[in-house]
Amino acid sequence: MNDWKRKWIMMFSPEQTTIGFVGVGVMGASMATHLHHAGYEVHLYTRTKAKAKPLLEKGMHWADSPSELAKQCQCIVTIVGYPRDVEEIYLGENGLLHHASPGCVLIDMTTSSPLLAKRIYKAAAERGMHALDAPVSGGDVGARNAALSIMVGGDAEVFQRAEPILRLMGSNIIRQGEAGAGQHTKMVNQIAIASNMIGVCEALVYAKSAGLDPASVLNSIETGAAGSWSLQHLAPRIIAGRFEPGFFVKHFIKDMGIALQSAEDMAIRLPGLELARKLYGELADAGFEDEGTHALYKLWEMNK
Amino acid sequence: MNDWKRKWIMMFSPEQTTIGFVGVGVMGASMATHLHHAGYEVHLYTRTKAKAKPLLEKGMHWADSPSELAKQCQCIVTIVGYPRDVEEIYLGENGLLHHASPGCVLIDMTTSSPLLAKRIYKAAAERGMHALDAPVSGGDVGARNAALSIMVGGDAEVFQRAEPILRLMGSNIIRQGEAGAGQHTKMVNQIAIASNMIGVCEALVYAKSAGLDPASVLNSIETGAAGSWSLQHLAPRIIAGRFEPGFFVKHFIKDMGIALQSAEDMAIRLPGLELARKLYGELADAGFEDEGTHALYKLWEMNK
Repeated sequence: MNDWKRKWIMMFSPEQTTIGFVGVGVMGASMATHLHHAGYEVHLYTRTKAKAKPLLEKGMHWADSPSELAKQCQCIVTIVGYPRDVEEIYLGENGLLHHASPGCVLIDMTTSSPLLAKRIYKAAAERGMHALDAPVSGGDVGARNAALSIMVGGDAEVFQRAEPILRLMGSNIIRQGEAGAGQHTKMVNQIAIASNMIGVCEALVYAKSAGLDPASVLNSIETGAAGSWSLQHLAPRIIAGRFEPGFFVKHFIKDMGIALQSAEDMAIRLPGLELARKLYGELADAGFEDEGTHALYKLWEMNK
Repeated sequence: MNDWKRKWIMMFSPEQTTIGFVGVGVMGASMATHLHHAGYEVHLYTRTKAKAKPLLEKGMHWADSPSELAKQCQCIVTIVGYPRDVEEIYLGENGLLHHASPGCVLIDMTTSSPLLAKRIYKAAAERGMHALDAPVSGGDVGARNAALSIMVGGDAEVFQRAEPILRLMGSNIIRQGEAGAGQHTKMVNQIAIASNMIGVCEALVYAKSAGLDPASVLNSIETGAAGSWSLQHLAPRIIAGRFEPGFFVKHFIKDMGIALQSAEDMAIRLPGLELARKLYGELADAGFEDEGTHALYKLWEMNK
């Protein structure tokens, strides 16, 4: 490694780096806290300032807008709600790309559109900045324990530079390819989850209808070929009638919409994902969009 | 425990018990061998005698028909192909129920119809015999290692008596309820697998279309919420282009047909299972019914 590269990689030392953090929801709050605990000066922006209050009390700093935040930071992490929020925060008039300094590394950890990730990458490059798309899986528990899986798209050298920061938030951090590859990988994750959740719900619906004891049935099947994370972690919650969100129905619908759009762009048909999107749409229409994804089971309860 | 009950339970000692075994396919051959090694005298019947040859060479005995086998055995295990085979072997003119002795315990380990299991249970009871439905999961490897999951329906006392014999073939043996409950539990297992397999295939199709490295994507997603037995064990085979059967497409189609019929009888709709049945039907029509279930992936390869 030559001296220049060593210096560039080391530039993100806690002593010399101010990190911006946009979006302090359940996950963002934990993630920002990990950066703060590692010694970084962390500046926060989020739409509702009240949400940032517990973090400001820990010693993090408030910025009144993305533009103000951008001016002070060498690295900025964003994790917000929807692609339209990402677009505004990065590409809007008050957005990061119009106000950050050349050399700034921008890491979007929102689950968002692969195409938008490519647009941001390109716009950043035109301004001498560096963008990574780095969506996560692992939920609020993974964020709290710094055990997220982080799927990264973007330049290999930028990834190398950002990796120590990502490592403060996750335990399984893999660069999957060029810009957009992180988002594409997250879509793969959501596609696998979508159909499996249908299978888990239908399995429990059948078990109950057949007069079986669902908990006993799980003991027979969960370690074999039917086994899955959802069967192990969510089926017991369904059986117990506990539907509070690990992951929100409304966010899953957003993700499936992105994946279906992306599939259409690539001219592939995903009938399982289409079915899941349709069923979750019915669930949201029935008023359950703020429950956990395993509330899909309620569709069958309603239609009895 | 009173003396009579103790005696009845102990009656299946290897020294005093002749076990009949009908059906020596890949799984049946391993299972019969475990009984033989435990010291039981095992009598075999299977449609194609050649298949039994390696077992006969180990010292097991041949019976020329189910009726001949029935006359010599106090316990009979069956694991054949389709419900129509089960029906013939149990209820046909040369079938087990017409020729076994009162007190005989009949254990059907075929994945078959819950309704048929109830019919056999009832017909057995009318003749003073005892029937269990005890389908398995775990495949050829599970059969070879005596590590099957065995899901049992039938009388609790009969289960208690048969359990030492089942324990020679499986490691996770649970009585799920009255007659038919074993088959229903197996259907729950297949329902969970069916939709998940769609999810696994669509995830890989998307990954490949997006230009990702599917093996690297698995490293990002397989330990999280998208994780499943199929993703862990079958996705790598799909990526490697290896589609030889763990479990045959044609047998899975049979199972899904039973589950859909059963769901219809119970007046529940299972759209994920319906979709899986439809997609696997297309796969079989295209000539892939003798490949492994993960060959579902080929549907997308064909339609490119």
